Formats: sequence, C-alpha cells, structure tokens
Amino acid sequence: MSEVTKAEREHGKAFLPRFDAQGLLIAIAVDSQTREILMVAYMNEEALRKTRETGLAHFHSRSRGKLWLKGETSGHFLRINEIRVDCDQDAIELRVTPQGPACHTGARSCFYRALEGDSLSPVDG
Amino acid sequence: MSEVTKAEREHGKAFLPRFDAQGLLIAIAVDSQTREILMVAYMNEEALRKTRETGLAHFHSRSRGKLWLKGETSGHFLRINEIRVDCDQDAIELRVTPQGPACHTGARSCFYRALEGDSLSPVDG
Repeated sequence: MSEVTKAEREHGKAFLPRFDAQGLLIAIAVDSQTREILMVAYMNEEALRKTRETGLAHFHSRSRGKLWLKGETSGHFLRINEIRVDCDQDAIELRVTPQGPACHTGARSCFYRALEGDSLSPVDG
Repeated sequence: MSEVTKAEREHGKAFLPRFDAQGLLIAIAVDSQTREILMVAYMNEEALRKTRETGLAHFHSRSRGKLWLKGETSGHFLRINEIRVDCDQDAIELRVTPQGPACHTGARSCFYRALEGDSLSPVDG
C-alpha cells in the first residue's frame, strides 16, 4: 500500500484505520441512547473486520492474546448502530445498543466510579 | 508496593491506576454538557499527575515521546470537571469543559466522521 498522507487520513473519505506498533487501535463503546461510555478496549485488524461483518462488537484481548466477541459467554453483546472514526484514524467510537450490562462486574458501564480527592466513589450514570 | 488484588482494583475505594507495559493508560475526554466524546489519548504517570494538579488535561504524546498539555499552543485547554475510572483502572474518562475546538483540525470533536459502508462521511455531533 502506498503511503497515506496526513491530509488524506484526516479529511478524505477513505477508511484507513491506523493500527499502532502492536497492531491495535482504541475502540470506545458508547450507548447510542444515553451517550454513556460503556467500555473501552482494543481492536486489531481481525476484531475490526469481525465487528463490521457481524454488527457485534469484537475486540482483541491483550491479556489472552486473542479475538474476543463481547458477550460470547455472558450474552451481553454490543450491537453496533454506528462507527465513528477520529481525525488520525487510530481510534474509533462504536455507538451501540447493549444487550445487558456492558461491564463484567455487572455494572451498566465500566466507568462506575469517580475520583474524589484520592479515593473512588460509586456513581450512577 | 504489594500486589493489588482484582477485587481491590475493581471494587475498592483506592485509586490504583494500572499503566500498561508502555507505562500508559487510555484517557477519553468527554464534554460534560453534551456528553460528546471529544478526543482520546494516552497518559503516563506524569501526565496523570499534572492533570490532577492543574485541572487541565495533560497527555503523553507517543509520537513525540513527551508530556503534552492539551491547548498549550492553541489555547484550547480541556478543563477537568470530573475523572471517572473503569473497572480494572487501566482507562479513565475525563469530563471536561473544552475551551474551544478539541481537535487540531478545528473540529469540535476528533470523531467528526462516520463509517458508511466503506467510506467516511462528515457528521455534526
């Protein structure tokens, strides 16, 4: 593939995802209705392709080193409504309809605590 | 430092940010008012400390390998209203009041294009 210019990447119509040195980009899942950030994880090329093919969020687990269909065991899939791309195409925003709690702890969102001073307090959205 | 258990990290009151092998965590900046995702970048320990000390978002630039005060040259600072932490404490959400466009392109948010089929289209929020 020929080198992509900064202008093409930032202003062009072509989707040219930019994976980092580890082959990953950041994917942020947001509830389409509430706009709440549900979770953030990484995608490699395979996870991105699977997500686009199936309409269900797939990520790349860095700890397990493999493809991860979100909801595979819990049934709490994230159904994709829209994918947005950032300026330099190294991060994407997934607007989703969650099929249940997005967090493995059972919380609706993984971001269920706020930093107050030096300690964390639960928040409810 | 003694090893932190999964339960402490996920359910405790202690802020125990988990930096990855590169010493980084993901920081997502969201507009407190509109809930729009403005940008996403990385923080190392120094950037996180500076952010907490000053109330202005600081990141770690991977390409330049140094601390980056967002708005340092443009004046478009991100003023922190709240910091939320995710379940395993390797990502944070910054709820901010942006002092101008958050994207270096002049867009309000870096996520100004949506993927439609195989190409990108501008969106307005």
